[in-house]
Amino acid sequence: MRIITIEREFGSGGRELGKRLAGSMEIPCYDQELIDEVAKLHNLSPEYIERISESDIRTVYPRTIGHRFSSMRAISNDSIKVAASQKKVIERLASQGDCVLVGRGADVILKEYRPFRIFVYADQVSKINRCLARSEKGENEKEIQRQMKYIDKNREIYHDLLSDTKWGDKENYHLCINTSGRTIKSLIPGLTAYIYDWFQNQ
Amino acid sequence: MRIITIEREFGSGGRELGKRLAGSMEIPCYDQELIDEVAKLHNLSPEYIERISESDIRTVYPRTIGHRFSSMRAISNDSIKVAASQKKVIERLASQGDCVLVGRGADVILKEYRPFRIFVYADQVSKINRCLARSEKGENEKEIQRQMKYIDKNREIYHDLLSDTKWGDKENYHLCINTSGRTIKSLIPGLTAYIYDWFQNQ
Repeated sequence: MRIITIEREFGSGGRELGKRLAGSMEIPCYDQELIDEVAKLHNLSPEYIERISESDIRTVYPRTIGHRFSSMRAISNDSIKVAASQKKVIERLASQGDCVLVGRGADVILKEYRPFRIFVYADQVSKINRCLARSEKGENEKEIQRQMKYIDKNREIYHDLLSDTKWGDKENYHLCINTSGRTIKSLIPGLTAYIYDWFQNQ
Repeated sequence: MRIITIEREFGSGGRELGKRLAGSMEIPCYDQELIDEVAKLHNLSPEYIERISESDIRTVYPRTIGHRFSSMRAISNDSIKVAASQKKVIERLASQGDCVLVGRGADVILKEYRPFRIFVYADQVSKINRCLARSEKGENEKEIQRQMKYIDKNREIYHDLLSDTKWGDKENYHLCINTSGRTIKSLIPGLTAYIYDWFQNQ
């Protein structure tokens, strides 16, 4: 089975890389689909799920999962339910067959599937330019920088709650891809070849 | 021009990866050749050059290159000459055309050539197994671990003297390759494809 997980810095193009890689390999990519599924399960809106699953994790994620219990005060019921569902949905999707999973700790959750783990990153300038280019709300550079810092911090916290390893440490990934000054599209054929070989020689 | 530089952890297979990659791309790989050339220049043995160019750098490398001068006491004349020659040889080799260069700060020295920079690493178990398999002197695990720590520390120091960036930080490389549990050979076709695309889309 070929499971590929992608962790990524905000603005590095990791989401696009996941989509394009899955397209090139002709397998599904779960990103927004994951959110939608969890939303449907709880009869909540996908926007709300996305917000609570990537923004408020530090205060809301149950620290009992693999870690010592510290404080329940700030934990909202929705967030606990959502985090637990997310884990179940990730496991179910992976069990269905080959796929690419973007973010949400899938690399840790699916450890037993021995996924090919990718970390996508870029320099600050490239990340800001990418965000500016895709921005729909017309945020300025400063707002993007703030958003970047906030989201990456939360991704790191989410990951570190699930695992003893540190988010972004190259040791935890099979391949770390720097997208600085590159189009994502241009990286896909070589990356696809690399991954095919990797699974073939397992 | 396609210049590829490889920095690597001791035992990760970086040297073999350089050789095989160069073979696959049909371009020269400079590693031992570099040592031999510097040795010839100074009429010293390659073994001696290798020893002083990777082992005693902390005490011998002139701290005046890009850094504040601190102490000349421990600097041996041979080592200064060798470090300077090494830099010149690296620059001359790169100016001749496409090539792969393994270690010795080539990624920093050749910055202006905009090389494709690779960092090769692996987990401790894989690195020790690789060393045990290729050991000619029959070192045991403990001796290899000591050697590993010592050589990687010196590579780090050498790199950090030439540059303000930190050796092994993924930000300084275009691709970080984890070779744990892999044969180097199996990684080459995909890697070659990735690098061809990278230079084509520059």
